[in-house]
Amino acid sequence: MATAEEIFDILGNQTRRMILEMLATSPCYTTEIADRLEIGQKAINEHLRIMQELGLIDLFVLKQKRGSPRKYFKIKDNIRMELFVAPRVFDASIKTEEIDLESIFERYPEYKKFYEDIKFDSEIRAIGRLKENLDYLKKELAEIDNAKAFIERSISETKEQILIGIEELSLSEIDKKVLLEMILRETYDPEKIANSLNIDANEVKESIQRLKYKGVL
Amino acid sequence: MATAEEIFDILGNQTRRMILEMLATSPCYTTEIADRLEIGQKAINEHLRIMQELGLIDLFVLKQKRGSPRKYFKIKDNIRMELFVAPRVFDASIKTEEIDLESIFERYPEYKKFYEDIKFDSEIRAIGRLKENLDYLKKELAEIDNAKAFIERSISETKEQILIGIEELSLSEIDKKVLLEMILRETYDPEKIANSLNIDANEVKESIQRLKYKGVL
Repeated sequence: MATAEEIFDILGNQTRRMILEMLATSPCYTTEIADRLEIGQKAINEHLRIMQELGLIDLFVLKQKRGSPRKYFKIKDNIRMELFVAPRVFDASIKTEEIDLESIFERYPEYKKFYEDIKFDSEIRAIGRLKENLDYLKKELAEIDNAKAFIERSISETKEQILIGIEELSLSEIDKKVLLEMILRETYDPEKIANSLNIDANEVKESIQRLKYKGVL
Repeated sequence: MATAEEIFDILGNQTRRMILEMLATSPCYTTEIADRLEIGQKAINEHLRIMQELGLIDLFVLKQKRGSPRKYFKIKDNIRMELFVAPRVFDASIKTEEIDLESIFERYPEYKKFYEDIKFDSEIRAIGRLKENLDYLKKELAEIDNAKAFIERSISETKEQILIGIEELSLSEIDKKVLLEMILRETYDPEKIANSLNIDANEVKESIQRLKYKGVL
């Protein structure tokens, strides 16, 4: 799977964004993409190759009524990329992990009925009902997004408060820096802290001793 | 505010990602950034200018104990960028909107106490308690992310079901395409549908008439 860095590099290119958008609508073959975007097939093929290598898109071959089989490309997985930037937070991530249904249904029991709807009732042909489901899901998504924004902002503010709180403690500069590093980055390894602060590991060890002695840790 | 397109262009550049990451940790001045990244000041200034213009970072001037005042850059707002790619979904968005606290507290009353904690108790200096808050928020974020992934996957699957459902209706190809366009893109404007399907607007109007007559709409 691609890293956040690789995804940023891919999406930094407008042509690739347009290709992904086309493929999200429906599977396409190279000529189709090249024609629509008015870009040469060779360039399109190169973009497709890069995105296939990084696991964003997939290739399949479809027999044609006449002529030779044709290569189609499609979106591979549900890919979610998120970036959150705020004071004290820079969080870039790609999420493709399995969804933990059990914990979802425990917290949101109303989703269960809905999940079974999609999953087992393959006979649903009533477009109207599916459209209702879609509208419900979009409303839920907006609410979840709102709660998520609140939590993220609270994380940023709490980190800021921790920083201010540490500033106000009567500690030496180095002890403050070590304490902050431990709390914000969740690192308790003196080597890592030393490396991040660009100081000697022994200084960090001594600082941790002092913090323990003062009862801060 | 920057568009999703502009943000992708900005983040397609590794140097700019590194600058944002530095500024998320703490405000910095140009020389500091240039030294840390080992990149010339002129180039850093150009990156900073672009990001400032797009509203990602902010400039402020700080007096120094000696010498002339120094220009610092900091992260401007809480910026959240999201990209979700899945079959039938390509959704890139930037979120900086106001959080709707009322609806959050109605749905998650347990957050209210927490909000008041950060907001009004400026006397909290107990780092331990802030650290507990931080851990709680991170756990909540993970759960919300899980629910969000479920909702997004369900949206993708529901759209797919709608496509299959429409395929199975006994309608002409053009009526199927028009119906799909109306449902997935929530566009009821014949001009827009015609434009998106690359056909004549009158054909779309006739198709909508047929769909109404058949009771599909």
